[in-house]
Amino acid sequence: MQVNNCSYETIWMEGLEVLLIDQTKLPFSFEIYKSKNYKETSVVIKTMIVRGAGAIGAAAGYAMAQAAIEYKNRTDYIAKINEARKHIESTRPTAQNLFYATQKVYEAALISPENAIATAKQLAQQNSDDCKKIGEYGNKLIKEGYCIETHCNAGWLAFVDWGSALSPIFYAHRQGKNISVLVDETRPRSQGARLTAWELKNENIDHKIIPDNAGAWLMSQNRVDMMIVGADRIAANGDVANKIGTLEKAIAAKEFGIPFYVAAPSSTIDFNCASGKEITIEERDEEEIHFQTGPDNKGAIHTIRVTSPDSTALNPAFDVTPAKYITGIITEKGIITPNK
Amino acid sequence: MQVNNCSYETIWMEGLEVLLIDQTKLPFSFEIYKSKNYKETSVVIKTMIVRGAGAIGAAAGYAMAQAAIEYKNRTDYIAKINEARKHIESTRPTAQNLFYATQKVYEAALISPENAIATAKQLAQQNSDDCKKIGEYGNKLIKEGYCIETHCNAGWLAFVDWGSALSPIFYAHRQGKNISVLVDETRPRSQGARLTAWELKNENIDHKIIPDNAGAWLMSQNRVDMMIVGADRIAANGDVANKIGTLEKAIAAKEFGIPFYVAAPSSTIDFNCASGKEITIEERDEEEIHFQTGPDNKGAIHTIRVTSPDSTALNPAFDVTPAKYITGIITEKGIITPNK
Repeated sequence: MQVNNCSYETIWMEGLEVLLIDQTKLPFSFEIYKSKNYKETSVVIKTMIVRGAGAIGAAAGYAMAQAAIEYKNRTDYIAKINEARKHIESTRPTAQNLFYATQKVYEAALISPENAIATAKQLAQQNSDDCKKIGEYGNKLIKEGYCIETHCNAGWLAFVDWGSALSPIFYAHRQGKNISVLVDETRPRSQGARLTAWELKNENIDHKIIPDNAGAWLMSQNRVDMMIVGADRIAANGDVANKIGTLEKAIAAKEFGIPFYVAAPSSTIDFNCASGKEITIEERDEEEIHFQTGPDNKGAIHTIRVTSPDSTALNPAFDVTPAKYITGIITEKGIITPNK
Repeated sequence: MQVNNCSYETIWMEGLEVLLIDQTKLPFSFEIYKSKNYKETSVVIKTMIVRGAGAIGAAAGYAMAQAAIEYKNRTDYIAKINEARKHIESTRPTAQNLFYATQKVYEAALISPENAIATAKQLAQQNSDDCKKIGEYGNKLIKEGYCIETHCNAGWLAFVDWGSALSPIFYAHRQGKNISVLVDETRPRSQGARLTAWELKNENIDHKIIPDNAGAWLMSQNRVDMMIVGADRIAANGDVANKIGTLEKAIAAKEFGIPFYVAAPSSTIDFNCASGKEITIEERDEEEIHFQTGPDNKGAIHTIRVTSPDSTALNPAFDVTPAKYITGIITEKGIITPNK
């Protein structure tokens, strides 16, 4: 996708270096981070310089490839790449895509280091291609003049390119459709206001950030034509775990008869998970609610308290939206309708 | 209510001075502002050192009383208090309670300056008494062990004492009921996280701030027993205009079978307004969404950007919740059920 009128992917490999957009600096500064070896790439994953399921998977694959090259001439090559694999897998132990990528590139590395690199690149390309397909299918749902609401960031920064929820929007815009986007701020980490808004601005797509409180009201005033969100995990029955607030929007959308779509690669569907009831929701550190970081009018970065001191907070990071609220799931294989 | 274990009202009069809690400094600093004359009190209203319908009404009444005393010995006494009235009424031209108070104290001032003071004090006392009554009625709905969600700030800071939505909570707690409160952050101005949390902490009531995104999810998990919110204006058919986000919560509450109450003095009901459709919703400055102000860890106050630069935002300040989502309206006269 476009950044300052140049084409970028979230992460890529040049020679033995892994290059990636430093997501901890966005949206206030655009910087490319260069990682020379698998240990550095592991730090990048752990410290969330790269984040988002697809992008983490690509990073982990590239890290495995870096390890294979690094240990190429060692007599204990297999032991060393096993060691590297464990190291990489310890960075984000709950990221499913990470384990899929390390497994695939590990298998390739057993054949040859060159094969590991080729496989890591293929995995990243596949991720990008799948996301583009989501855009192609999703685009068919978007009519000229539509105003689309989205929640959190399920854009290309969370993958290698294109993204999931934003891919149909990018695709429709590139087809010349006249569309606009309402971007939920998505407190407490504000990924909507910070990352989704940044992506849309760089693609020159008309958009406005709205407080998380405003969705239902704007829907009730016929100012939203459809809603598209991403997914962290989809149960076999179509229940969707996604960023906190997704459930609230889905309920409001159903109330006002607004189509509510989930966009995700089919690998997000967990057939071992029968329903959303089996999904455990992580409660994150309450500090995310109390503090916000950003630049003052001179560009100096500050972290400030935004809540009353001495009060505590509750920070459920995700919620589960039952399938009955979801109009359809847009995947790279087509659009599926959950059981109702 | 309690602040640092002492009893306070939001605003009061001592001699010719009006004293009030400086709400622009909360929750990071607790300061009492002293205003010597009606012009200073007008500045206090205009700059939102005092805010909230009931508190503004009390401030305007006291300002009129200050004017009556100031011009006591002038031969053009009536002309001067007319001039003062216009001056006071120009501060917040859409605040209904302000005009009610200036009218009442103006009439009293025509009899005598002492009468003006007595009337201003009576109006403030009446406001406090009505709010306490709301607490008494609302308390009957609260069972031992209840967890109550609230939105924005409809506490005593918005009135003279007790508040509207928080009054039943204060009352129940003082009756010895074991209750807890979930406080919606209420972006973009965060009155929940800043003012409601501060009020609850000072009354030693168990509470947690939650992101505006978390309400529906916590309701779906049976972690909310009831919801109470305030109101800016109630139409004759029971539709309620209140802070943006109220509609979203009301829809979710109905979906999960959770009682959703509005608490407000009966003067909030506008019988000239047939339904919520007649209420115009103010769109406020988008800067409220882009910037946040608060102290860093050394106490220095900064204003920082919290959204992606160059993106615009949409800031509807209120929404209208149709009566069909509301379980009841708690007033100082009792609990009423809207037409369904």
